[in-house]
Amino acid sequence: MSVTYADVAAAHERIKGHAVHTPVLSSSAVNERVGAQVFFKCENLQNMGAFKFRGAFNALSQLSPEEKRRGVLAYSSGNHAQAVALAGKLLGIRTTIVMPADAPKVKLEGTRSHGAEVILYSKDESREEVAARISRERQLAVIPPFNHPHVIAGQGTAAKELIEETGPLDALFVPVGGGGLISGCALAARALASDCKVIGVEPEAGDDVTRSFRSGQIVSIPVPQTIADGARTQAPGDLTFPLVLANVDEMLTVSDDALLRAMFYLWEKLRTIVEPTGALGACALLEGKLSLPGKRVGVILSGGNVDLAWAAAALRARS
Amino acid sequence: MSVTYADVAAAHERIKGHAVHTPVLSSSAVNERVGAQVFFKCENLQNMGAFKFRGAFNALSQLSPEEKRRGVLAYSSGNHAQAVALAGKLLGIRTTIVMPADAPKVKLEGTRSHGAEVILYSKDESREEVAARISRERQLAVIPPFNHPHVIAGQGTAAKELIEETGPLDALFVPVGGGGLISGCALAARALASDCKVIGVEPEAGDDVTRSFRSGQIVSIPVPQTIADGARTQAPGDLTFPLVLANVDEMLTVSDDALLRAMFYLWEKLRTIVEPTGALGACALLEGKLSLPGKRVGVILSGGNVDLAWAAAALRARS
Repeated sequence: MSVTYADVAAAHERIKGHAVHTPVLSSSAVNERVGAQVFFKCENLQNMGAFKFRGAFNALSQLSPEEKRRGVLAYSSGNHAQAVALAGKLLGIRTTIVMPADAPKVKLEGTRSHGAEVILYSKDESREEVAARISRERQLAVIPPFNHPHVIAGQGTAAKELIEETGPLDALFVPVGGGGLISGCALAARALASDCKVIGVEPEAGDDVTRSFRSGQIVSIPVPQTIADGARTQAPGDLTFPLVLANVDEMLTVSDDALLRAMFYLWEKLRTIVEPTGALGACALLEGKLSLPGKRVGVILSGGNVDLAWAAAALRARS
Repeated sequence: MSVTYADVAAAHERIKGHAVHTPVLSSSAVNERVGAQVFFKCENLQNMGAFKFRGAFNALSQLSPEEKRRGVLAYSSGNHAQAVALAGKLLGIRTTIVMPADAPKVKLEGTRSHGAEVILYSKDESREEVAARISRERQLAVIPPFNHPHVIAGQGTAAKELIEETGPLDALFVPVGGGGLISGCALAARALASDCKVIGVEPEAGDDVTRSFRSGQIVSIPVPQTIADGARTQAPGDLTFPLVLANVDEMLTVSDDALLRAMFYLWEKLRTIVEPTGALGACALLEGKLSLPGKRVGVILSGGNVDLAWAAAALRARS
């Protein structure tokens, strides 16, 4: 069961009026620095602060009446959890979320604030096992964070909206965790801007998709240590990987140092709060990993859930 | 020479394609806290990070060819300076800016980055005297920060855009420095949403417009000590004051502590970087200074130029 652009377009109809049609921002400072015309799609300004709402709402709204009645379960380091919680609240579906005990406080609180039951697991446990046990006991449908056709189709609507607003792009930079966002966005780019190069960006320590992309087969890595907490995936999924292989032109990685620098640069120049994972695509562009003189470049800013106290400490440590 | 809504509408035509049509953001967290439907007009995402670009561009584009050839001078604590510098750059007009030596670094650098010649004055000098001397010597037209009909008309376009996008509003909260923004915005509100209450908000220490509004005559205060550096005005102008008196429904003040709290709340919940002055209107609303149950409320976020290092220190001091 694969995913096509028709699924992205159908997802877009489904989420209309529920997801935010997020703004596209530009900055002359960024354009001058990069030497290109750059359009930032602000999914940090999406409901609950990340693109994840698109996929979650699209997936939950397609459950059977019986599944909706029983409720759903999700496991996530944070933004997917909040997305499923909020989509459940809007659709009247009970949500149970399995989260790591050390997830950012802002994401834990966000998830609970949308009425989800949060079950924490420790580093010694496998989240998949915890989630499987609870979903079995309670008969809950599991909404995976990226490896699900309805989730992928929903995420693709971010690029669809961007390109419909900007017109054709020469390149599109997309943050990559498990590959759900880029799988959907690449489908939209192929359909709406066929010459657009689609570039995925991961943290150096969490380069599972990059390694898989380069070797042509799914590579698993140990749990990555990176400030990009949304990209601590260990391997792409069996649905996302073929889509990445088929539709993505290049995979790049950036260091955590560069990522933090890019994040604060966006705070200052674009005046928008992006979280580390959300700045991955922008970071590769700002670091000059590709030269795109005079080109029209799209960048997905995928999320903006940051503990301000953490950010203040990080800023202090840099100066 | 007063200003009317027709001037605001004409200014809007003049700045189209040059000023950013800034996005309007909402937040369910804010709506729940306030008990109203709140629409934030993000002038922090305007060119150079503040609404000031609207008025500056409108004023500079109406100079005579001879005035344009000689160049212009502005004095400002920061955002107006950057606005005149950028408008001059776009219109091919040389700009000279008189700024306080202790202006925020980010605003000094921003002004210079747009090609302006910056002349600093110390606390012992009067900026008006410094500006008058240089404009006389160099024969430069002076673009005042708020007390100018073309500046006022330009600023009003922010509220015009907001109400055209949201439809009728019950209330509109506007930050107040010298009254240029609120004078223009109140004209737009009166014309487009006649039942809309227009509420101006100042810092407690910089309450020159509030005192003048309540006493019915222009009151001057000593240079205010407040973190809202865009509201360190000592008195409204002879153009802005009659417009405030005629069209503003209420003036409120907020403490610097509350302002800082509101600013970081917006960073976290709205995920947008607002400077202290820019959060004045939002602060009065968030502090519950007026009860507006179920109402449709507009808030102008007027600017977003913040030294991140300063913000990190302020955040640390609060925790």
